[in-house]
Amino acid sequence: MTTRIPPRSGTAFELKSGQLLSVIDPEGEQVSDMLAYNLADRREHLSSGRSIDYASRLFLSTNDILYSNRSRPMLTIVEDEVGRHDFTLTPCSHDTFRIIYGDSDPHHGCQGNLEKALAPYGIGPDDIPTAFNIFMHVSVDGDTGEIAVLPPKSKPGQKTVFRAEMDLIIALTACSAGQSNNFRYKPIEYQVSEAGA
Amino acid sequence: MTTRIPPRSGTAFELKSGQLLSVIDPEGEQVSDMLAYNLADRREHLSSGRSIDYASRLFLSTNDILYSNRSRPMLTIVEDEVGRHDFTLTPCSHDTFRIIYGDSDPHHGCQGNLEKALAPYGIGPDDIPTAFNIFMHVSVDGDTGEIAVLPPKSKPGQKTVFRAEMDLIIALTACSAGQSNNFRYKPIEYQVSEAGA
Repeated sequence: MTTRIPPRSGTAFELKSGQLLSVIDPEGEQVSDMLAYNLADRREHLSSGRSIDYASRLFLSTNDILYSNRSRPMLTIVEDEVGRHDFTLTPCSHDTFRIIYGDSDPHHGCQGNLEKALAPYGIGPDDIPTAFNIFMHVSVDGDTGEIAVLPPKSKPGQKTVFRAEMDLIIALTACSAGQSNNFRYKPIEYQVSEAGA
Repeated sequence: MTTRIPPRSGTAFELKSGQLLSVIDPEGEQVSDMLAYNLADRREHLSSGRSIDYASRLFLSTNDILYSNRSRPMLTIVEDEVGRHDFTLTPCSHDTFRIIYGDSDPHHGCQGNLEKALAPYGIGPDDIPTAFNIFMHVSVDGDTGEIAVLPPKSKPGQKTVFRAEMDLIIALTACSAGQSNNFRYKPIEYQVSEAGA
């Protein structure tokens, strides 16, 4: 079963250890911010800093592990048709649109959508760390450190698949930021399946 | 007054809005992991993801602002004799030494030292995010995303100076990781002064 996340919105659901999560970009050039929390203890969450450190790489793809703040594997990337994601930036927010885009009436962004989706699980705004930004294409100049948000490399229908390494709460968005999705707000789709199914 | 942080240890203290914090590398090629929390509400803390996003740069230096998870300025870099720091990696920890170094009896690392220093302020292990790693020299390959931890560029006596933009709890370490300090454990020094003094 495929679930659709409408443009500029988000959702949250449980993913059990061993289950596979496929995140699909149905129209291409769209980003999905992903968060993960230990279902049994929500203080354990995705950690960009630990994951990048253990991979010795900013850009994670097939066979790479997304670690928690307690240095335990939360998710493994088991298939990746796109191959480029970001793990350095926090979800776009009211403040992103105010500070970076100069909007006078800023959208609540992925941060707002994640807050809304995670509230029923008792996870608050301050508990939202740097997300794993699926399909987000951030270029890095190794000399100056300058970064630029470019259109995603994802083509219509391409997907990235994650295996849960513990019981998780997952939050996913269809990103709200123009820079991230080539200035056209699009949906995201996802499927949950059993390993080997 | 100069305070010395012995090798492989850490400390925490209050820094009032407007005060200047100078972090000094007395022997050269040493790293200091820095964390900051809002003194009035410890759930507000340093955010690498927001700071990198708003600077559009991985490497922060003079005039750059370190933002909180609530997108508010916590610290501004007002002077920087070294010019290269890291804001992508979490503090070295028992697990860092186990996973990356393969140590059989791993040191508790900066993570352990930060936990100990912050416990009296009611800040727990899960509340320690990616630190601003002063003087840490992490190279990035813009094509592959590969990172490498190189000897710091800091020479003996060089410093970086931060101005507090709100009342803060600051934690600082003298880093415990061989890769970060060219495999010689050294002290760090710091000074707190009033702006304009």
